[in-house]
Amino acid sequence: MNPLPHYGVDPLPGLPGSVTICEVGPRDGLQNEQAIVPADVKVELVARLADAGHTVIETTSLVHPKWVPQLADAEEVLRRVERRPGVRYPVLVPNRRGLDRALDLGVTDIAVFASATESFAKANLNRTVDESLEMFAPVVARAREAGLNVRGYLSMCWGDPWEGEVPIPQVVATANRLLRLGCTELSLGDTIGVATPGRVAALLSALTAADVHIGQIAVHFHDTYGQGLANTLTALQAGVRTVDASAGGLGGCPYAGGATGNLATEDLVWQLAGLGIHTGIDLAKLVDTSVWLAGRIGRPLTSGTARALAAHH
Amino acid sequence: MNPLPHYGVDPLPGLPGSVTICEVGPRDGLQNEQAIVPADVKVELVARLADAGHTVIETTSLVHPKWVPQLADAEEVLRRVERRPGVRYPVLVPNRRGLDRALDLGVTDIAVFASATESFAKANLNRTVDESLEMFAPVVARAREAGLNVRGYLSMCWGDPWEGEVPIPQVVATANRLLRLGCTELSLGDTIGVATPGRVAALLSALTAADVHIGQIAVHFHDTYGQGLANTLTALQAGVRTVDASAGGLGGCPYAGGATGNLATEDLVWQLAGLGIHTGIDLAKLVDTSVWLAGRIGRPLTSGTARALAAHH
Repeated sequence: MNPLPHYGVDPLPGLPGSVTICEVGPRDGLQNEQAIVPADVKVELVARLADAGHTVIETTSLVHPKWVPQLADAEEVLRRVERRPGVRYPVLVPNRRGLDRALDLGVTDIAVFASATESFAKANLNRTVDESLEMFAPVVARAREAGLNVRGYLSMCWGDPWEGEVPIPQVVATANRLLRLGCTELSLGDTIGVATPGRVAALLSALTAADVHIGQIAVHFHDTYGQGLANTLTALQAGVRTVDASAGGLGGCPYAGGATGNLATEDLVWQLAGLGIHTGIDLAKLVDTSVWLAGRIGRPLTSGTARALAAHH
Repeated sequence: MNPLPHYGVDPLPGLPGSVTICEVGPRDGLQNEQAIVPADVKVELVARLADAGHTVIETTSLVHPKWVPQLADAEEVLRRVERRPGVRYPVLVPNRRGLDRALDLGVTDIAVFASATESFAKANLNRTVDESLEMFAPVVARAREAGLNVRGYLSMCWGDPWEGEVPIPQVVATANRLLRLGCTELSLGDTIGVATPGRVAALLSALTAADVHIGQIAVHFHDTYGQGLANTLTALQAGVRTVDASAGGLGGCPYAGGATGNLATEDLVWQLAGLGIHTGIDLAKLVDTSVWLAGRIGRPLTSGTARALAAHH
């Protein structure tokens, strides 16, 4: 199965020659599935994603199992995942203790998870934004001293379920604080999926005006309102080169009323390939992986592209 | 429920102040649902769509019931639908006999359905492209004489399941023939949902280079591969001002492997509203309508926006 060039390739002006996809399925995806997946499946998932050509695979989270029971086997997974040259395996780390465990396990890429709004910082981290950044400061500093890459997630960048529209200056301020802590990359999250293309362009423009280097920015869109790919296209036109996505649309149940699905990697790869943008990902292998995983967790694929291509098998 | 401005509005350069949505749910949507809906429901659906602010509602099809049993009650529906000032109710008409029936029923807007590829012309119309245009020629001519608006659908504009990539000159040639027959509007269909934004821009650019007026072009995207809204954004940036969509994503089952869902009107309205583009549509009323209809046909909504907003009710 290599269906893509079959339907033609046409570039658009102002888009890059290649894009890095940060595959968040094993962490962000599985964390938000009801089913708890055995470590064997997680280890195989990460290997299959690397086989499919992924070069950044967010592997797991060292958050306490009380908060994320789906990833309680993080240490086992990290011990067993084969780390290949040229592939990065970032791990979410909540605090200093998590960093220590990550360093013991030979992790070279970590992520910390901050919020652009007070409401979500309180709900998700039980801290104010200030308190959470104080908590992260020594984590990021020590990680950087140890030579690690540090991704800073910034959630609720465009909308917040409690606060509605999030003011751009507020997002820019927290983004800059994360970068000043030493984060090497910033992933801007549309956590509830409400952003539209003009809002994306406005925030990116404000960030670059505040001296944030566009090369440090990744975008993390959710397809809750169907806006993920249009927002991605706009972000790429603004100079972003790293896009988060989740294999098969993993994370967030398609049947739930308030589904919060991640942008599906297959849909993203389809778009980028049609635009002649290199991702290094073999779409057929990726779809096979998503089909296999959907069987393991007992739910249908949410990715339209994965469903359509799987039907051709 | 009026949730949109709650998450902010930011325009993008080069986009229009307003867009006309051609609501295709009652015809294209219901025609592609397995469930057969009673005329009562169809009449109420059209009235509710007008209540929600739609100004173009494709109401039914006068194709022989043998081919489209879902719309076998077309004449009853057309007799019963209340036609409001300022709202157009186009009806698909396959041939001269269909046009006669449409004229008897006081229809003022018709649509004819052509294919950009020989394979689909054969499969769908059992004719070559030439033969189908010969069949439409007197229909369009007579309709125009009678003062009707005539929309020409052109399907498979970017990809065809039998032929793969469809060459742009082939699409441009058939598009121009439809316009020369007298069609007042041309709806370019991505019938299998494979188009990506660069391919959309390339076809629109070739059409305008061939002296097609961009104001006569509508786009009709399917979300099969998740590309509908990114393609829409690109079409709007190229000057298109009319977009086809289907309430709730009606048409094409979300569970089927090769789902062929229309772009959902709610997702489109969410994007346009976030961009500050006027559509005249009340999203809350539209979501209520889609929720009501989903209950009547016994299937879940495929529109992410409709699902998310319905969950807030």
